[in-house]
Amino acid sequence: MNTDLQDFSHKRFNILTGEWVLVSPHRAKRPWQGQNEAVSNEVRPAYDPSCYLCAGNTRINGEVNPDYKDVFVFTNDFAALQTDSKTFSVNNGLFKAESEQGICKVICFSPDHSKSLADMAVEDINKVVTTWQKEYVELGSNDTINYVQIFENKGAVMGCSNPHPHGQIWSQSTLPNEILKKEKEQKEYYAKNKRSLLGDYLQQEIEANERIIYTNEDFIVLTPFWAVWPFEVMIVPKKQYNNISQISNTESLAFADAISVITKAYDKLFNTSFPYSSGIHQAPTNGKDNSHWHWHMSFYPPLLRSATVKKFMVGYEMFGSPQRDITAEQAASRLRYLI
Amino acid sequence: MNTDLQDFSHKRFNILTGEWVLVSPHRAKRPWQGQNEAVSNEVRPAYDPSCYLCAGNTRINGEVNPDYKDVFVFTNDFAALQTDSKTFSVNNGLFKAESEQGICKVICFSPDHSKSLADMAVEDINKVVTTWQKEYVELGSNDTINYVQIFENKGAVMGCSNPHPHGQIWSQSTLPNEILKKEKEQKEYYAKNKRSLLGDYLQQEIEANERIIYTNEDFIVLTPFWAVWPFEVMIVPKKQYNNISQISNTESLAFADAISVITKAYDKLFNTSFPYSSGIHQAPTNGKDNSHWHWHMSFYPPLLRSATVKKFMVGYEMFGSPQRDITAEQAASRLRYLI
Ligand SMILES: O=P(O)(O)O[C@H]1O[C@H](CO)[C@@H](O)[C@H](O)[C@H]1O
Ligand SMILES: O=P(O)(O)O[C@H]1O[C@H](CO)[C@@H](O)[C@H](O)[C@H]1O
Repeated sequence: MNTDLQDFSHKRFNILTGEWVLVSPHRAKRPWQGQNEAVSNEVRPAYDPSCYLCAGNTRINGEVNPDYKDVFVFTNDFAALQTDSKTFSVNNGLFKAESEQGICKVICFSPDHSKSLADMAVEDINKVVTTWQKEYVELGSNDTINYVQIFENKGAVMGCSNPHPHGQIWSQSTLPNEILKKEKEQKEYYAKNKRSLLGDYLQQEIEANERIIYTNEDFIVLTPFWAVWPFEVMIVPKKQYNNISQISNTESLAFADAISVITKAYDKLFNTSFPYSSGIHQAPTNGKDNSHWHWHMSFYPPLLRSATVKKFMVGYEMFGSPQRDITAEQAASRLRYLI
Repeated sequence: MNTDLQDFSHKRFNILTGEWVLVSPHRAKRPWQGQNEAVSNEVRPAYDPSCYLCAGNTRINGEVNPDYKDVFVFTNDFAALQTDSKTFSVNNGLFKAESEQGICKVICFSPDHSKSLADMAVEDINKVVTTWQKEYVELGSNDTINYVQIFENKGAVMGCSNPHPHGQIWSQSTLPNEILKKEKEQKEYYAKNKRSLLGDYLQQEIEANERIIYTNEDFIVLTPFWAVWPFEVMIVPKKQYNNISQISNTESLAFADAISVITKAYDKLFNTSFPYSSGIHQAPTNGKDNSHWHWHMSFYPPLLRSATVKKFMVGYEMFGSPQRDITAEQAASRLRYLI
């Protein structure tokens, strides 16, 4: 292990985005005098009559949810993107804008209002995974859709307005910023080396064995070398697949197992239902050659020291670069211990 | 006015960073069921014996603050960057890291614990401005410092751990991500047009007259066309200066006036001490030709609907692109009304 990385300020390079993160390991000792988050240790019922995501309940727009038994998908009632939105373009000197079409969906992971992914059986998580696969293919086959973003906001601190276990899928006609960055870096590496950037990275991680948290037959769960969030984690398939629709049934079960293991470890870390935003980055559905893509899922959790103290990505982070105190290696070893 | 921009989903291009923001104007109508922030309407005393920034008080490391009368600057007791930190480099395949040196300072805006910039007289804000100028020059003249980031985190919701009016200055040996982006876009434009990118942009904004909030002799306060945060604002000098040290005494007073006007309007908007992160982006101090730089100050406030409802930059925003509902034009007109 390179001990300099544990002791002195440095920046680390994110091979997927081409950007840097500032790491200040010595700073983890500073006392916290700022805002504490509220912890909700409320025990939720399996069914909440006032929840607009529970089976059989009526949503704000008057629609009634079916009596669903596992996963339930519907179009977002307040979609940020719509397919029938007007097409236009502003190209007026330094004012540049383009209309954007898309489809936004909500995906309920379970009818059980009291659960989160961490509490669900692997087979039930697998039903979520196969729904993601189906949605990726279906949405992606729509002519106006060239990219499908699957994500989850978990916890009030992550802007989640309903504790019922659910995620979202926003699909759209152009590629968002983060995808453009990963597209560029992966494409350049693949063109040069004829190998997957993340595949080669996984090899290096296996040899270093400092940031790997968990491995099963088909997936590796690790804290990336360039992690930004204190307990950021990435789930990567060992084989290079461009998108989640390409993995087999066994592999999808292994993926569900990896999700189960990391979300359970998260909940143990600060003895709280651990908040995060998670998301899957994968090949665009634009019909182009996407053979450089190696899909992966990331978790960006805000908590730093306890259930109530989070890392604020503010001033310096907004105007300069993201910054962290605890190192990726320290975070990985704490999570590994909880598995 | 282009009404399409007020009615339909679109993305807008940020000419300074080369990135996009997704705008969904129709979505402003959705009800809010998520987390509310705590409002602190506590009236603070002018002096707080337990505050580590008040004059005469002892800080955590045992140092005693002088009996300062206006602005007071000291080196951060828990600095993320240090000048005597070890120099090293990791260049191991896909693991890339570089040590980073720097100096982090804290700048108290006033000895009066109860004040914020919005409550201070323009002449007192001007003392803060001249301190920023001095620090930019002094820090920048240090051999190891090539970039000086001046910023303020205001409010508990922005991770500010002490309500005493203060900001920070983090200066460092390499250029942070956001600066690299603005460096690239401004340089390319300047090379091609022999004019400042922001200067030309200001001309267009003056003609359009849709996003300008306030103007004085030397500065324009506006909501940029590509604003990300609901009430994001930019203060730009009319003349192209590369950095704040180049403005005259009259201009620095005009800058202080602009800061005063916008922070007062912010406080009126939701009838609360308005939280934000603000920062100044200006030319690096790397001794290179920085004639393409046009310095500016930005405010990134998180509040969206009221003192307690903020915009969450989470899931889609973290994995895709930033997204907003209320348009830049709507935000500008609401702020303009409060001046
Ligand atoms: O230095 P402070 O005020 O304790 O800390 C605050 O500002 C820093 C710079 O933006 C951030 O890195 C911290 O997350 C935030 O809590
Ligand atoms: O769609 P929701 O859950 O109401 O909204 C949440 O997730 C969205 C997508 O990440 C964000 O744009 C919102 O700021 C957040 O509150």
